[in-house]
Amino acid sequence: MASAPEVHVVIVGGGFGGLTLARSLRRAPVRATLVDRSNHHLFQPLLYQVATAGLSPGDIALPIRSVLRDHPRTTVLLGEVTTIDVRARRVTLADGASLSYDFLVVAAGARTHYFGHDDWAQDALGLKDVDDALAIRDRVLCAFEAAEREDDPVERQRLLTFVAIGGGPTGVEMAGAFGELSRYVLARDFRRIRAGDTRVILLEGGPRILGAFDPELSARGAAQLAELGVEVRTGTRVLGVDAQGVQLASGVLPAATVVWAAGIRASPLAAALGVPLDEGGRVLVEPDCSIPGHAEVFVIGDMARVGGIASTPLPGTAPVAMQQARYVTRQIERTLDGLDREPFEYADKGIMATIGRSRAIAHVGPFRMSGMTAWVAWLLIHIVFLIGFRNRFVVMFEWFWSYVTYKRGARLITGARPHPPR
Amino acid sequence: MASAPEVHVVIVGGGFGGLTLARSLRRAPVRATLVDRSNHHLFQPLLYQVATAGLSPGDIALPIRSVLRDHPRTTVLLGEVTTIDVRARRVTLADGASLSYDFLVVAAGARTHYFGHDDWAQDALGLKDVDDALAIRDRVLCAFEAAEREDDPVERQRLLTFVAIGGGPTGVEMAGAFGELSRYVLARDFRRIRAGDTRVILLEGGPRILGAFDPELSARGAAQLAELGVEVRTGTRVLGVDAQGVQLASGVLPAATVVWAAGIRASPLAAALGVPLDEGGRVLVEPDCSIPGHAEVFVIGDMARVGGIASTPLPGTAPVAMQQARYVTRQIERTLDGLDREPFEYADKGIMATIGRSRAIAHVGPFRMSGMTAWVAWLLIHIVFLIGFRNRFVVMFEWFWSYVTYKRGARLITGARPHPPR
Repeated sequence: MASAPEVHVVIVGGGFGGLTLARSLRRAPVRATLVDRSNHHLFQPLLYQVATAGLSPGDIALPIRSVLRDHPRTTVLLGEVTTIDVRARRVTLADGASLSYDFLVVAAGARTHYFGHDDWAQDALGLKDVDDALAIRDRVLCAFEAAEREDDPVERQRLLTFVAIGGGPTGVEMAGAFGELSRYVLARDFRRIRAGDTRVILLEGGPRILGAFDPELSARGAAQLAELGVEVRTGTRVLGVDAQGVQLASGVLPAATVVWAAGIRASPLAAALGVPLDEGGRVLVEPDCSIPGHAEVFVIGDMARVGGIASTPLPGTAPVAMQQARYVTRQIERTLDGLDREPFEYADKGIMATIGRSRAIAHVGPFRMSGMTAWVAWLLIHIVFLIGFRNRFVVMFEWFWSYVTYKRGARLITGARPHPPR
Repeated sequence: MASAPEVHVVIVGGGFGGLTLARSLRRAPVRATLVDRSNHHLFQPLLYQVATAGLSPGDIALPIRSVLRDHPRTTVLLGEVTTIDVRARRVTLADGASLSYDFLVVAAGARTHYFGHDDWAQDALGLKDVDDALAIRDRVLCAFEAAEREDDPVERQRLLTFVAIGGGPTGVEMAGAFGELSRYVLARDFRRIRAGDTRVILLEGGPRILGAFDPELSARGAAQLAELGVEVRTGTRVLGVDAQGVQLASGVLPAATVVWAAGIRASPLAAALGVPLDEGGRVLVEPDCSIPGHAEVFVIGDMARVGGIASTPLPGTAPVAMQQARYVTRQIERTLDGLDREPFEYADKGIMATIGRSRAIAHVGPFRMSGMTAWVAWLLIHIVFLIGFRNRFVVMFEWFWSYVTYKRGARLITGARPHPPR
C-alpha cells in the first residue's frame, strides 16, 4: 500500500466517470486530485425532472467533497482545467495554478452542441447542468403565468406550446415530462388554462424516435408519448429557432418554450490533448482508453471514442463511464505492478428510456419491457444501483419521496434568473 | 353565500398574511384576487436554513396557485402592484393592467433596510427572499473553496470569517447556523480546513442580543451561541461594510461573508396609500387595521403599525400577520352583514428564537424555555401549526426529513449566480 506513495493521479471531472474513478482508486497506492468546474456531482439521468419542476436541484446533486469525505488521500479542487501539457505531465487551471501528474484521467463529459447554430442557444435551451435546468423551468412556469393573463388566443396558444427537438432519450424524457406537467399538474393550478389547451411536440429528423432501440420498442415508446398527449413528428428537419418558435420546412411552429436535445459534443478539453478526435469531438482512444503515445493519459466517458472511427460509438451513459473508470483503476494498478494492460471491454447491461412517471421502455439482455414494468426497472436501477454514495439510503429515500409526491416546492420562479416567455 | 357574488377583495402579497386571508375568505360571499411579485409562498422562518445550505429553496416554498388550487373563487396573479388609487378603488400593476376592488388588503411585508447606506448592500447581504438566501449560500461555499486553496494565513482567516450584523432573531439564527455549518458540516469535507479555523461573529449595537426577550433568556441564548463557537459582541456599532469586511470603531474586522440582519422597512407600497407612516415605513392603521378615511382598505402584517405611534410595535412575525388576516376576514363579513367592526386584539402566543439544530429560547405565557426543550417546541410549532397547507403531512415530513438529515444536496454552488468571495 505505502510502496509508492508519491504516485499522483489527476482526475478532471466529477461526473459518473471521475467520481467512480476517485472512489475505486481508494485501495490503490496513489494519491489523487479531482478537479471540477462545479462543486457538485449531478445525477444527470434525473436532470430533466428539475427542468420540468418535479425535483429540486438539491435532490439530484451532491457536493463532490462530501462524497469523497472519507478518502483522505484524495483532494478536491473547484477549478477549470484550461490547458494540458502531456509532455511535461502538467495541467493548468483557469486561475493560473497548475498540477503535475503521473497519471491523468480526463472525464469532462459533453456539452450541448448546435452544429454551427450557436445563435439558437438562447431560444432552444440545452440541458446539461443545473443552470440549464433552472432556465428551462423558469421559462415553462413563466409561460403558464403569461398564458393565464393572455386574451389573444393565438399568442396564448404560442405560450402553451412546448417543443423538444431531438428524439433521443433526453428529448423523449422532456416531452413526456412536459406532457405530464401540463396535463396533470399545472392545468389544475390555473383558472383559465385547461389541460387540453397545452401542446407538446417532439421533433425528430430521422424516421423514428429512440433510434437506439429496436423498431418495436421505439414504436411502443411513441405510443406511450401519445398517451400523454405528445405529438411526435418524425422526419422533420429544424431550419431555425428564434423567439417566436421553430422554423420547419412547412412553416413556423409558434412556441414559447423550446428545448434542444438534438446534439452534444465532447468537452473542448479533448482538443487540448493534441490527439485525433472523431466528428463528435471525442478522443479516439487506444484499446486501453489511453491516448496515442501517452499510456499515462486516459480519457473516459462521453469524451472517449473506443474502438476507432469505424466502430459504433458506445452510448453516452453513466454505466459506460463507470465501467471505464473501474477499468482504468485496474490498469493503473497493473502498470504500477509492472504488468501489461488488458483491453477495455464494455459489458452491455442494456438500455432504457423513461417516458413520464409510469411509462418507459427498456431492452436488457434478451428482455424487452415497456410501460409500468419498464418504468419500475428504470426506477430501481437508477435509484438503487447507480447511486453508490455513502448514505445511499437517505439519498434514495429523498429522491424517491420527492419523485412520488411530485414535490410542489420545485415549481419555483426565482427573480435572479429572469427567463420571460419569449 | 350567493347573496353578493360581485364583492371583490384584492389581496396584495402572498406571505403569511395574504395567504391566510385568501384561505379564510373561502366561506365569505366574495371573490378574491391575490397578487404577488413571486409565484411562491415562502416559509420565511426557515429561510436562514437555505442561506446556510441546510435546506433547498424547494423545501420551504410552495406555489401560491397550488395552495389555492381548491379555492375556485380566488384568482392568483403574478405581478407587481405599483400604484394604489384609494379614491377610485383601483390598483395598477407594473405591466399596466389594473384591478378594481371593493375591499383591498395590503400585506406586502418588509424589505431589508440599510438606513441610508444602500452601498453596503452588495457586501452585507440581506435575507428576505430565496434569491437573497442563495446569494449568501453561494458566498459561504465559495469562501470555503477559496480558503482550501489559500496559502496566505491572513487572507485565509478572512475567508473563514463570517459576520452577522444585528442581534435579533435573524442574526442569531444565522450566526448559530454558520457556527454549526463551519464546525460540524463543512470542516469535515475539506482537507486543509479544521473546525477551529473558522470564526463566526455576531455584532449587536445594543447592550444585549435578543432584546425582545427578558434578560435571563437573552443571556441563555448568548450562552448557547457560545457553545457553537460564535463570538457575540454587544455594544458594537458598525461604521461601514465593504469588500474587505466590517469597519468598527476598533478597526476593520476582515470577513469574506457578512450578513445584514440589522434593519428592515415596510414595503414601499405603504407610501402609495398616501396615509401617515411610522419611522419604519409602516402604515399607522386604525384599531380595525383599516387606513384612515378608507374603511375598505386594510393593511396587515409587517406593513401595519397597530395602536398608534406611541405604542410598542407588534413583532414582525407570522402569528401576528395570520391573526390579522383572520380578523380582517371577519370584519369584511361583518361589514357585508351591516354590523359594526370590532377592534383588533393580538393574542400573544409567545416568542421564540432558534439557535442551531438543538438549541433555542422561548417565552410562552408563563413558561421560559431554553436548550433542547425550546428547540423541540420551536420545531413543533413551526412545522405543525404554522403550515396550514393542504397536504400538511407531506410538506411537514419533507421539511422534517431535510432538516434532520441536513441534506447535502443543498450545498450547491450554481454558475448563473456568481458570488465570489469578496
